[in-house]
Amino acid sequence: MAEAASEELLLAAAFVSDAQYNRNIPFKTSPQAVRLYYLYNHWIMRTVTYFFIFLNLSLAVFEEPAVYPLPFLATSLVEVLCLLVFFGRLTHFAKITPRNVFWKDTKNICIMVAILLSLTDLAIYGALRIYNIKSIRWSRIARPIFLINFAESRQIRRAFRSIRNTLPEITYVFLLFMFSLLMFSLMALKLFGERNLQTAEGLPYFRNYLEIVFDLYVLVTTANSPDVMMPAFDFSSWYALFFIAFVIVNTYIFMSLFLAVVYNNYKKHLKNEIRQLAYMKHRKMIEAFNLLKEEEGAQPVVREARWKQLVKLVAPDISNSHRELLLRISDDEQKGFIDKKSFVQLADLLNIQVITLKIRSHPLGQWMPRIYKSSVSQFLRSMVRHRFDTLIIFAALTATILNTTLKSTTMYNSQQILDIVFILRVLRLIRIVDSIQRFRVIMNTLINIVPTMLTFGGLTLVVYCIFAIIGMELFHGKIQFFPANSNAPYALECGNPALKDSLFARGKYCKNNFNNFASSFIVLMELTVVNQWHVFASGFANVTAQPAKLYFIAFHIVMVIIIVNIFVSFILEAFFVEYSLEKSEVETAIERKIQELGMGVQEEVLQDEQLLDNMESAEHDLEGEVGTKTQPRGLVFKIASKRYRTVDALLQRMFEAEIPPEDEGPSLEEILNLPPAAASPSHLTSERAV
Amino acid sequence: MAEAASEELLLAAAFVSDAQYNRNIPFKTSPQAVRLYYLYNHWIMRTVTYFFIFLNLSLAVFEEPAVYPLPFLATSLVEVLCLLVFFGRLTHFAKITPRNVFWKDTKNICIMVAILLSLTDLAIYGALRIYNIKSIRWSRIARPIFLINFAESRQIRRAFRSIRNTLPEITYVFLLFMFSLLMFSLMALKLFGERNLQTAEGLPYFRNYLEIVFDLYVLVTTANSPDVMMPAFDFSSWYALFFIAFVIVNTYIFMSLFLAVVYNNYKKHLKNEIRQLAYMKHRKMIEAFNLLKEEEGAQPVVREARWKQLVKLVAPDISNSHRELLLRISDDEQKGFIDKKSFVQLADLLNIQVITLKIRSHPLGQWMPRIYKSSVSQFLRSMVRHRFDTLIIFAALTATILNTTLKSTTMYNSQQILDIVFILRVLRLIRIVDSIQRFRVIMNTLINIVPTMLTFGGLTLVVYCIFAIIGMELFHGKIQFFPANSNAPYALECGNPALKDSLFARGKYCKNNFNNFASSFIVLMELTVVNQWHVFASGFANVTAQPAKLYFIAFHIVMVIIIVNIFVSFILEAFFVEYSLEKSEVETAIERKIQELGMGVQEEVLQDEQLLDNMESAEHDLEGEVGTKTQPRGLVFKIASKRYRTVDALLQRMFEAEIPPEDEGPSLEEILNLPPAAASPSHLTSERAV
Repeated sequence: MAEAASEELLLAAAFVSDAQYNRNIPFKTSPQAVRLYYLYNHWIMRTVTYFFIFLNLSLAVFEEPAVYPLPFLATSLVEVLCLLVFFGRLTHFAKITPRNVFWKDTKNICIMVAILLSLTDLAIYGALRIYNIKSIRWSRIARPIFLINFAESRQIRRAFRSIRNTLPEITYVFLLFMFSLLMFSLMALKLFGERNLQTAEGLPYFRNYLEIVFDLYVLVTTANSPDVMMPAFDFSSWYALFFIAFVIVNTYIFMSLFLAVVYNNYKKHLKNEIRQLAYMKHRKMIEAFNLLKEEEGAQPVVREARWKQLVKLVAPDISNSHRELLLRISDDEQKGFIDKKSFVQLADLLNIQVITLKIRSHPLGQWMPRIYKSSVSQFLRSMVRHRFDTLIIFAALTATILNTTLKSTTMYNSQQILDIVFILRVLRLIRIVDSIQRFRVIMNTLINIVPTMLTFGGLTLVVYCIFAIIGMELFHGKIQFFPANSNAPYALECGNPALKDSLFARGKYCKNNFNNFASSFIVLMELTVVNQWHVFASGFANVTAQPAKLYFIAFHIVMVIIIVNIFVSFILEAFFVEYSLEKSEVETAIERKIQELGMGVQEEVLQDEQLLDNMESAEHDLEGEVGTKTQPRGLVFKIASKRYRTVDALLQRMFEAEIPPEDEGPSLEEILNLPPAAASPSHLTSERAV
Repeated sequence: MAEAASEELLLAAAFVSDAQYNRNIPFKTSPQAVRLYYLYNHWIMRTVTYFFIFLNLSLAVFEEPAVYPLPFLATSLVEVLCLLVFFGRLTHFAKITPRNVFWKDTKNICIMVAILLSLTDLAIYGALRIYNIKSIRWSRIARPIFLINFAESRQIRRAFRSIRNTLPEITYVFLLFMFSLLMFSLMALKLFGERNLQTAEGLPYFRNYLEIVFDLYVLVTTANSPDVMMPAFDFSSWYALFFIAFVIVNTYIFMSLFLAVVYNNYKKHLKNEIRQLAYMKHRKMIEAFNLLKEEEGAQPVVREARWKQLVKLVAPDISNSHRELLLRISDDEQKGFIDKKSFVQLADLLNIQVITLKIRSHPLGQWMPRIYKSSVSQFLRSMVRHRFDTLIIFAALTATILNTTLKSTTMYNSQQILDIVFILRVLRLIRIVDSIQRFRVIMNTLINIVPTMLTFGGLTLVVYCIFAIIGMELFHGKIQFFPANSNAPYALECGNPALKDSLFARGKYCKNNFNNFASSFIVLMELTVVNQWHVFASGFANVTAQPAKLYFIAFHIVMVIIIVNIFVSFILEAFFVEYSLEKSEVETAIERKIQELGMGVQEEVLQDEQLLDNMESAEHDLEGEVGTKTQPRGLVFKIASKRYRTVDALLQRMFEAEIPPEDEGPSLEEILNLPPAAASPSHLTSERAV
C-alpha cells in the first residue's frame, strides 16, 4: 500500500509538474514510464538536446563552403554523433508515450525521416567523395527540422502552425495582388513600351513584359522608387499618375491587407492555443487531485501529509518555510486538508517567485564583520543587487578582454577600448528613461517582447538556414570580394566580368555573397531589410542563369510578406495586451489571497523607491530598507512583476479567469480539436453551459 | 393652430433629417432659423461651398511659381471671391446656431482668423508688388484650414482629432526612439569614427556625429541599406552585427510600436466618436417625437396623418407607395398611430434604399414597342444595368477622345488608342475575380475602404499643401530640369553646379523639384514612398542651406510615421470589421421586420445569380427575372448590400444595437464629453444602469 501510494504520488507529481511548466506530452502511467518521464524532462537532458541541435545547425559553418574549414571526416563524424543523439532522444520519447499516440504524431515521423535522409545523403556523398565525384549535400536543408520538431520547441512550432493556418488566406490575397500586378504591367507595357525610353543606365525601358512585372514587383517593395518612374516622368509629367495609382493600390493597400490577414489569423490561433494550454493545465491538476483524493465528510480532499509529499516531489528545492507558506495559502482555514478548488491552484502557486527577505542580517555580517564590510565584499553585494548594470559591466569587461586579444591583428589601441567601455556604461542611461512613468508602458512592452523575440529568432533561423544552403548551392564562388588595394583581375567587378557596369559592382556590394554560411546570413538579412534587393537579384542573375531572380522573389514572399508581418503582429499584440492591462488589473485569485494574507510584496514597490537612489550610488543597505516594510516571517512572496510577463502568460491568465474551478473542462480530444471559430472564450463558456 | 403645427412639423423634420444624415449642428428652434437651416443644408449650397474650397486650394497651380501662370490680378480676384463665399457661409451658419454655441466653436474662430489673415496678406503683398518689392505669400499655408474646418468635412476633422489625441503617446515613443538613435550614433562614432573609412563615393565615413545621426535615421527608413553598412562591413565582417542590432531595434521594433500606438488610439477614438453619433441620432429622433406626440390612452404616440406630413417634409422625393410601405413597417398592426419605439427607427428606415421593381413592363415598351426593342434602346438598357462596365467603357471613350485631341502634339497613333481601350476593357476581368466566393471578403474590404480613402485623401491633401507651399518658398528655382539633348550649362547637374557628382544628379532626378505646385506634389509623393528620400534631402541641402534636411525629416515624421500609419490602421480596422461580419450577421431590427413582411430582396441574391450570365451577354431580360421572385406590390425594399457599407456605418449599427429604444440616452453634454476610457460600449451600458 505504501509502495502504491508512492507510485500514485509520483504520477500525480508528474501531472502537477506538467501543469506548472505547461508541458503537453501524453505519457504512459506505468511506474517505469513515469520515472523515464522525469528523466526525459530533466533540465540536463533538455539542455543536451538543444546543444546538439545547434551543433548540427552550426556544422554549416565548418562544411564546404566553410567560414572555418574542417576536414570532411571531422564534420561528418560530428553529424553522425548528432543524429545518434536525436535518435536516442526519440527512442526515449517513444518509451514514455503510448504507442498509438507516438505513431500518430507527425513530429516524430518527421524526425525519423530526417535522420534517415541525412544518414543516406552522408553515406552517398562520402562514397562519391572517395572517387572524387562532387555531389550536393541536399539533406542539409532538412537540419532545421530538428529545431522545429523536437518537443521542446513548442513556441517555434506554434509560429509555424500559425503560418500554415494563415497560408490559404494569404494565398487568396496574394493571387489578387498578382492579378493587380499583372494588369498594371500590361498597362505599363502598352503605355511606355513603344516610346523608346531609356533608364538612367541607358538600358531599354519597359519593353519586355516579364521585366516590367519584375520592376513593378520591386516598386511594390519601394526599393526602386523613384528610379523606375523617372524615364516616363521625364517624358511626360502625367505618367506620374500611373505610378501613384500603382503605389497606392499595391504598396499601401495590398501590403496592409497582408498585414491584416496575418495579424487576424495570428491572433485567432494564438488565442485558441493559449486556451488549449489553460484547459490542459486545469485538466492535469484535476487528474492529480483524483489520484490523491480521500473522502472527508462527503467532500473529496487531499490530506495535508500527502500534499506535502507531493510538493516535495514536484519542487524538491524549496525550503520548509516556503512550503509552509504554500500550505497556509492552500488551506487558509487550517483544516488539515486541501479541497479541489485550492488544490488546482498549486501549479500557479509553484510558479510564483519567492524571495527570502530576512530580518536577521547577512550570516557573513554576523560571523565575519570585518570581511563583510571590506570593500571587495561591498562591491560583490552591490553587484548582486544591480543585475542590469552588472550585465553591462560584464559585457564591457568581455569586450575589453576580446579587444586586448585581438589587439595584435587589428589597429585597436587602449584609448578605443576605454571608449567601448564608456559606451557600454552609457547604456546605464536607460535606467533614467525607465524611471519616468510615461515611458514605462513602452519599456514594459519592449521587455515583454524579448521572449517572443527568441521564438521569432528561431523562425528566422529556420528560414535563413534553408535559404542560405540553397543560396550557397546556387551562387557559391560566383562573386568574390577583394580589398580596395587589390590587383586581382576584375577586382572592381567582384572578380566576375559579367558584373561590368552593373549596379551591383558600382555599389561596391562585392562582399555581399553566398561564399559561406556567415556571408549568406548577412545577405539574407539585407534582403529582409528589402532596400536594394533588386540590385542583388540582378547582380546574381547576371553571374548565373536568369531564373536566379526567382530565388530572391521567393525569399521576399516568405520572409517579408509572411514572417516579418508575423513579427509585427507579435509586437502589435504585445502592445495591445500591455495597454489593456494598464487599465484593468488582471489579478488572479491566488495573488489576491496572498495580498489578503499580507504576505505579498510587489517588486515594483521596491523598484520605484530605489530607482533614483540606485542611480546615485549603490551603497545603501537594501536589507534594512525592505525589512521594515515586511512581516517578521522571514519569507515574503514576490508576485511576479508585471514587467516580466510574456504575452503568453498574460493571455493565459485572462482565459484562466473564465474556467470555473469546479468544472472538469472539455475532454482531451475536445481540447485538442477546439475549432478556431470558438476563439472568443465567452462563446465557449456558453457552449458548455448548454 | 395650423400654423403652429406646421412650425413644429418643420422643426421635427429638421431633427429627423439631421438624424438621417448624421449631421451634428445645434440650431436655433425659431421658425426663421429652421428655414435658414434647411437652406444651409441644401445640396446646392454644400456643393458650392466645396467648389470654392477646392478652387481656393487650386489657386496654387496658377500663382507664382505657377504650372499655368495667370496674372496676379486674376488670382487675387478669385481668392477674394472665395473668401467672400466663405464669409457668407459662416454668416449663414451664425444665423442658425445659438450665439453662445457659435462663439464657443473653435472651427468658426479658425475660419474667421484665416479669412482675415488671407485678406491682410493679400493686401500687403499687392501693395508691395506695386512698388516692385517681392514678399512671401505666407497666408497660403492657411488655405487648408477651410477644408478642415467647414462643418461639412466631419471625416477629415475626425481624422485630425484622432491625430491630435494620438500625439502625446506618439511623442513618448518618439522620444524613446530618438534616445535609441542617439545612443547608436554615439556607438557608431566611437566604433568607426577613427578608422579613416570611406563611402562608395569616396567621402569620409562616419566622422561627424550629426551626419551619423542623419545616416542612421535614414537607415531606420531602410532607404540607405545596405550602402551605409558596406564600408564598415568591408573592413570587418563583425561590424555587420552593429547594423543588424540597429535595424532590429529601430526599424522593426520601434516602427511597429509607432503603428501599434497609432492603431490603438485610432480605434479607441473612432469607437468613441461613432458612439457619440449613435446617441446623437437617437436623441434627435426623441426630440422630434416629443414635438409631435399626442396622448393615445396613457401612451404618447404620433398619429398617422402627422407622420405622413413629416415624411413628406423630410423626404419630398419618395413616391406614395414607398411612403405607404414605410408606414406599414412603422405601424405594423395598422392601429392608426406610431409609438415611440417605431418612430425612433424612422431615420434608419429612410436610409434604406428602395428599388422600383415593377411587374408591369417598361412604359416605353407599352407605348412604343418598336423603339423600345431597337438596338439603340437595348444598348442603353444594358448600359444602365451594368454600371461597372459602363464606367470603364466611358473611361475608355474619354481616353480615346483625349488621345485624339493630343494626337497632333504627341506621337500617338490609332493603334495605341485601341491598345488603351483594350487595356481598359481588360479591367472587366475584375468581375471574374469578384465572382469567386473566396475573393469576396477581400473585394468587400477593398470596396469599403473607398469612402475612408477619400478622408485619407483629404488628410494627405492638407499635409501636402502645407509642405508644398513651404517647399516652394525654400527650394523654388534651385533645381532645373533640361531635356536629355539640352545644351544648357550644367544640364546634367540640374542647372546647379553645386550638384556636381551628387547622387541626386547621377540618379537623373532633376525633374523632382519644387518649381511648381504639381512638381512639389510628385516630390512629396516620392518622399511618402520613402525610398531614396535621403538622396533628395542631400540634393536639396546642397543647393540651399544645410537645415534643409530638417524639412525632409519633418515631412517623414508627419507623413510616414503618423499619416501613413493612420491609413494602415484604417485598412486593418476595415478588414477586421469585415471579417467579424463574415461570421456574425449584424442585422438591425428594421431589416428583420422588412424580411418578416416579405418585402426584402437582397441585392446579393440578384448579383450571384446574374453574374455569370452578365459575363457572357447583357441581352437577357432583367425585369422579368426579378419580377417572378417578388410580391405583386410594385415596390421592394433593397436592403443596403453588405458590399457597400462603410466602416463607420458598420460600427454604428454595432453600437445602435446596444441602445435600448425606450432610453433617452445621456444628455447632450454627456454625449459630447464621453470619456475615451469608456470606449467599450458594454462599459457604458453598465454605467447607465447604475
